Amino acid sequence: MSKLCPEDILVRQILRGFSKTRQAGLRVAAGDDAAIWQPRKGQETMLTSDWFVEGNHLLRELHPAESVGWKCLARAASDIAAMGGTPRCFLLNLALPAMATGKWLSGFLRGLRRAANLLGCALAGGDTTRQERLLINVTVIGEVTKGRAVLRSGARPDDLLFVSGRLGEAELGLRLLRKTTGKTRMANAAVRKHLYPEPRIALGNWLAQNRLASAMMDISDGLSTDLARLCAASGVGAVISEGALPGSAGVPRGEATRLALDGGDDYELLFTVPALEIPRFRRLWKEQPGVPISCIGGITRKRKLLLVKGEGSAEELLPGGWDPFRK
Amino acid sequence: MSKLCPEDILVRQILRGFSKTRQAGLRVAAGDDAAIWQPRKGQETMLTSDWFVEGNHLLRELHPAESVGWKCLARAASDIAAMGGTPRCFLLNLALPAMATGKWLSGFLRGLRRAANLLGCALAGGDTTRQERLLINVTVIGEVTKGRAVLRSGARPDDLLFVSGRLGEAELGLRLLRKTTGKTRMANAAVRKHLYPEPRIALGNWLAQNRLASAMMDISDGLSTDLARLCAASGVGAVISEGALPGSAGVPRGEATRLALDGGDDYELLFTVPALEIPRFRRLWKEQPGVPISCIGGITRKRKLLLVKGEGSAEELLPGGWDPFRK
Repeated sequence: MSKLCPEDILVRQILRGFSKTRQAGLRVAAGDDAAIWQPRKGQETMLTSDWFVEGNHLLRELHPAESVGWKCLARAASDIAAMGGTPRCFLLNLALPAMATGKWLSGFLRGLRRAANLLGCALAGGDTTRQERLLINVTVIGEVTKGRAVLRSGARPDDLLFVSGRLGEAELGLRLLRKTTGKTRMANAAVRKHLYPEPRIALGNWLAQNRLASAMMDISDGLSTDLARLCAASGVGAVISEGALPGSAGVPRGEATRLALDGGDDYELLFTVPALEIPRFRRLWKEQPGVPISCIGGITRKRKLLLVKGEGSAEELLPGGWDPFRK
Repeated sequence: MSKLCPEDILVRQILRGFSKTRQAGLRVAAGDDAAIWQPRKGQETMLTSDWFVEGNHLLRELHPAESVGWKCLARAASDIAAMGGTPRCFLLNLALPAMATGKWLSGFLRGLRRAANLLGCALAGGDTTRQERLLINVTVIGEVTKGRAVLRSGARPDDLLFVSGRLGEAELGLRLLRKTTGKTRMANAAVRKHLYPEPRIALGNWLAQNRLASAMMDISDGLSTDLARLCAASGVGAVISEGALPGSAGVPRGEATRLALDGGDDYELLFTVPALEIPRFRRLWKEQPGVPISCIGGITRKRKLLLVKGEGSAEELLPGGWDPFRK
């Protein structure tokens, strides 16, 4: 038997855990120079990459290895959900410090495997290297029915604006995580949402398959930042109502608004529905169980973001969400 | 106009340079949550990721920004060549320190654009984040005719073993780069090969289309390490002949052998051809101009790597190439 070098031993450890997650379209998976992928008939392939970096997106003393494994895949898969697609496989790129082997790596792989199983996402390949800090880059490959992907650029004036779930909850979870320890943490829904977010695959699919959404994206950096992106891509503006924001429960009103506008890591969907489609949207929605949705405002011709306050005054909404390049 | 956050300004700078590189199959490119990709009829999609990391793969004081841009794409594209495919588009993931903006970033993007144009590879997306060290991860998406991809696992006993080009030249280039400055550098072929490697796309295509190679991979970490990988994947061993190694010119014989065996960054192709196919291989090869190839040995049933020396003695060949995890 020819000898294995240290990198190959690490790669084998990673591959072992994923040998059971299969995908019909993945003809050649991890282990060769490249993976070979063939989407089902009538499907297009979707591609997206996401950084998950120590110091920026994760703190080693706060985030259990298992959460890091889960979240690095879940957040990349959320970009597939955000266009109405279904994740199928992923490339895992790990830059590992010396400490991130042994027990840490086992925990990481356990969390990653749980997310991969939930999402039906097979390991297709990737690359490993050594680094002082932990850096993870995940590329997710998804599928969407030909022509049905919902882009950011399709919002038109008078479309209504919706979000799924509660906004700011993951940010609240991060705050609680800093204050609490042990079991209290995992009993809290906001902490669980911060550590183990679940991308809105079914909702994204449903909106795309029924051609209900004119534009869609996921909220990863905070509503104020991501809504600005959707509006810029569509060449429109938006008015949102403070009172309509589905904020976190159990925090003062003003605080809940701030968290809902600028809190990151929610991975909820932000989407627009043309006014004419609203009756069909409501009818179909009734038969659709699951995640709550809220109408938070509408799209405007004027390219500005406005926040209407409780008392009826309006102020310009500036991007205040998470940005690694903000000083 | 709604405001742009700093990350979005950086992303716009990157996208501007690539707006002219198009790919028919890329229905939605960078700028949305995910890219949408549709291969040509009769083609399968290939996927591969590669790290290019400061301190490991590149040294800021030695490697011009333009070379970093070129090489991060060229080396990932080499994995596509190594299975007989053609690169089509890529996802660019940048973790940038404060210094790697302004002039450095312009140089980097210039080199990347040159490589993208040479390879016909369009920017499909990616992610950017802040980091103290420069880390680049590139995912390349390629195409290969259905069923024609050449895997690492197809080598069989008695197949002949070939390599393209010269081995160890890039490593020699790195040594020269450390010793010289300015113009002398770029006049040297080995230095150019280290800074601006050209993946062997045409040769890989030709071998796959003509069903000549039974196994193939690229040599990125050094022949001794990569041959061990090909043999492990195929469940075979190999005997190679020192005298047949196409080493660098202008260095002492023993040194040239060491460089050829363990030098990294060559991005040449390592492939096997079944003995029965050799006449057809030779006939077709005559009509094929371009890169030189050398037969360096053969595949054995016994799962060991042997190096036959000039005087006829044989020694076991151990993986001595580049490994980020070797202590």
